[in-house]
Amino acid sequence: MHIPLDRQHDIPLYLQIEEALRRAILSGVFADGDKLPSTRALAAELSVSRLTADNAYAELAAKGFLQQRRGSGAYVRYLPPPPSQPLPLLQGEFPLDRFTTVTSRLDGYADIPLPPDTINFAAGIGSPKIFPLDEFRQILQSILRRHAEEAFSYGDYCGYYPLRDTLSRILSAQGIPTRPEQLLITNGSQHAISLVSQSLLAPGDTVLVEEPTYAEALALFRLHKVNIIALPSDQQGMQLDTLPALLALHHPKLIYCIPNFNNPTGRCMSEGRRHQLLHIARAAGVTILEDDYVGDLRYSGQKLPSLRSLAAPGEVIYVSTFSKMLLPSMRIGYLVADQPHYTQLACLKHVDSFTSSNLIQRALDAFVTVGRYDKQLRRACRLYRQHRDAMAEALTQTLPLGCQFEIPDGGLFIWLQLPENVPISQLMPLAWQAGVTFAKGGGFYTQEASGEFSLRLNFAANSPQLIIQGIARLSAAIRQCQAEKSPA
Amino acid sequence: MHIPLDRQHDIPLYLQIEEALRRAILSGVFADGDKLPSTRALAAELSVSRLTADNAYAELAAKGFLQQRRGSGAYVRYLPPPPSQPLPLLQGEFPLDRFTTVTSRLDGYADIPLPPDTINFAAGIGSPKIFPLDEFRQILQSILRRHAEEAFSYGDYCGYYPLRDTLSRILSAQGIPTRPEQLLITNGSQHAISLVSQSLLAPGDTVLVEEPTYAEALALFRLHKVNIIALPSDQQGMQLDTLPALLALHHPKLIYCIPNFNNPTGRCMSEGRRHQLLHIARAAGVTILEDDYVGDLRYSGQKLPSLRSLAAPGEVIYVSTFSKMLLPSMRIGYLVADQPHYTQLACLKHVDSFTSSNLIQRALDAFVTVGRYDKQLRRACRLYRQHRDAMAEALTQTLPLGCQFEIPDGGLFIWLQLPENVPISQLMPLAWQAGVTFAKGGGFYTQEASGEFSLRLNFAANSPQLIIQGIARLSAAIRQCQAEKSPA
Ligand SMILES: Cc1ncc(COP(=O)(O)O)c(C=O)c1O
Ligand SMILES: Cc1ncc(COP(=O)(O)O)c(C=O)c1O
Repeated sequence: MHIPLDRQHDIPLYLQIEEALRRAILSGVFADGDKLPSTRALAAELSVSRLTADNAYAELAAKGFLQQRRGSGAYVRYLPPPPSQPLPLLQGEFPLDRFTTVTSRLDGYADIPLPPDTINFAAGIGSPKIFPLDEFRQILQSILRRHAEEAFSYGDYCGYYPLRDTLSRILSAQGIPTRPEQLLITNGSQHAISLVSQSLLAPGDTVLVEEPTYAEALALFRLHKVNIIALPSDQQGMQLDTLPALLALHHPKLIYCIPNFNNPTGRCMSEGRRHQLLHIARAAGVTILEDDYVGDLRYSGQKLPSLRSLAAPGEVIYVSTFSKMLLPSMRIGYLVADQPHYTQLACLKHVDSFTSSNLIQRALDAFVTVGRYDKQLRRACRLYRQHRDAMAEALTQTLPLGCQFEIPDGGLFIWLQLPENVPISQLMPLAWQAGVTFAKGGGFYTQEASGEFSLRLNFAANSPQLIIQGIARLSAAIRQCQAEKSPA
Repeated sequence: MHIPLDRQHDIPLYLQIEEALRRAILSGVFADGDKLPSTRALAAELSVSRLTADNAYAELAAKGFLQQRRGSGAYVRYLPPPPSQPLPLLQGEFPLDRFTTVTSRLDGYADIPLPPDTINFAAGIGSPKIFPLDEFRQILQSILRRHAEEAFSYGDYCGYYPLRDTLSRILSAQGIPTRPEQLLITNGSQHAISLVSQSLLAPGDTVLVEEPTYAEALALFRLHKVNIIALPSDQQGMQLDTLPALLALHHPKLIYCIPNFNNPTGRCMSEGRRHQLLHIARAAGVTILEDDYVGDLRYSGQKLPSLRSLAAPGEVIYVSTFSKMLLPSMRIGYLVADQPHYTQLACLKHVDSFTSSNLIQRALDAFVTVGRYDKQLRRACRLYRQHRDAMAEALTQTLPLGCQFEIPDGGLFIWLQLPENVPISQLMPLAWQAGVTFAKGGGFYTQEASGEFSLRLNFAANSPQLIIQGIARLSAAIRQCQAEKSPA
């Protein structure tokens, strides 16, 4: 048994041993009933005192993971969770299956393990590699040393004020004039969308979306029993010709829209359409929810003005997040809104879950100075541009005829159209066997069937090497699918 | 200017200086337009190099807090938020005013500053002093060193599995048999109540509560436009005689109940009533939401079985939190539910905000071993018992005739009844002037007026010395209120 021990560390050795053993049990290295070495043998093996080994076992026993039988030794006690404990899905109510909901969120540590060596293009995140972890760790430590008590207080309900202040400066510098009093910190931007939905939409109300669009927003609206009306989109984003008629017919309470690097298509709404959308929504008195989850991850082309920056007060609620630009799981997002929306949303957040983690908010504030944010952004854009180019190149070189894609100017995704003889339902298991996975198209549509010939590939999270290998596997799976069909 | 610098620290000196200056600006020590010392003078004063001082100012300027004018020096640039930025309240819709919602949550760092030297009995939290901060800090550091990438991944939607495992063992040891698959981690227990409310209650539905009860649950139900029917309570908790009739009349979808150390009264529901409540709810097919926010903080009397432990599967959803026993703002709570509730709640949590902070969950898991939990609990109980006794003693000795209170067996609060000639609306400003604050009774009732002669005192969060001083001030304010009335 090898357990790396850090003898300089503040954490006592017995706890280090206990933790290593517990993790070994939880991860299945030891199973229920396995006999562990005697404390004497363990002590010798790890060059620790007998007392340390005894204490480690005692701690493990106190946690219920070990049974000490008189005279016979120490035995593991642990019944692991059922082998695959999938994200529970409401059949019918919750129409996204594991390939869109779970693997689309897979970040290597999610509930359903991918087969080993699978190359995962399904994730909805950036690369954790770009994050300056050491710097962040130091900041966290400094906060814990100097401001621990404040960092663990409930704090300000609207969000830690200095962070809102910093964020409002960043947004203002990006052309979205914002005051801290218009900013509400949320538990990720999904939570921001959820609060807006709870605040503005009752069951039976209607929301208007572009199609395809972010699967988890559709899932949220569905779970809240909101009717969803979808407008098709093209290279310039949401198509607006039928919008006035649809507004008159359905009286939606909200228009949900991802104008920059849409998830899943990667497309941007053109500037002309942005003005037009605002104009039509204004005439009908409908609020717009602008989801700008990766707005500043742009690698080519011209920056476009956000809807919020073009709108009059009250017309657009803006949401964004730290999840994509920084780390997948800060669980800190934010929204920008005017009165009376802001007060309604702040009250709702208050009764929903009080505050977001003060510790993480303080760390983010110390980390995200304007200068550092820009530096981090430049680093992310440089890296992701390479990833995008590697994937576009690999796709161009290996895809069989009949596949189509566009090269996006930013974001995380390439959206792929399959040939008519390669439906996703047949490709999926072949790709899975070939060791590659992606988000299937159906989850991004109101009707699952509309996505039967599309899939979403994440280029940001993997290295160029893995991208090249993964796209080769994907292309092979597509060819195999075609081959299996042609003889029939 | 005094800036404490830590020259051994990993954070560079210039950032330490920048942070100190920024905090001084944000907290109002420096105002917009104030001239700062030259970098030469600053460097000399702090015994740092000129370059360090330059870098500190450059960082401050990059964040927008400083303007460097050629030849003339460095000036603070900062427009502070409006002087009192109260928690935004929806007039009418959100019936709790600042004295219940804000000061009841005041933990020394909330939005509305208390006048200096005010003794605060309004808080809803325990004492942050009892938390073994050093130990927790070490655990966090160790996670950041060894598992940082996992700690910042989205992770398991239902909650970090080992933490659910640990919690299920703790609950099972406390007589509530629980499997990890029945546990859902939430962003504090307020979030658990919110998810249950979103999942089980639509606008226009009815919830049944005891009265008085937790103000923020009432606020949540109101904001969701749920009808609230209240049953009165006595020393034995919720009064049940009219319950069958009320259930038949109003068909509530949920009964919300705090059987242990009710907030605000501190009372426990008797064992007989617990059985009776379950019996009546079962017959009517109504789900019970058991809020056990401080169930294990017991200082005297006999432990009572939880509703969940007495119920059949599906009858009771149980919620609790780390906020009270450990620290006010872990923002980690949990619920225990059976199918089909569990799946519905897990899906709702997924679309609501994905996961709760993986970093904090991992730290809690490493911290909260069964043994350590018990030790921490014993420590908390020992301390809070002293605080309770100090407050009971002080009240007995100084309160004027006509005031009434009971000594609770646990929890955080003493509930005080005022004499007829001391309405809370008149006492409140006098107490505020006397330098003491508390949560006024009205917020804990469906009708504000029902609480006109009651108030809630937190004994847990303050030291015995402060308690004695604060109760003396309160008694003086009550006497003053009586004196001002009697001549009239
Ligand atoms: C378009 C879009 N909006 C919002 C989110 C929510 O992310 P988070 O809650 O981590 O901020 C995502 C995440 O995948 C997304 O793709
Ligand atoms: C009775 C009761 N339930 C639930 C909560 C929610 O606390 P948290 O969300 O911090 O877990 C509180 C907090 O004051 C409470 O008093």
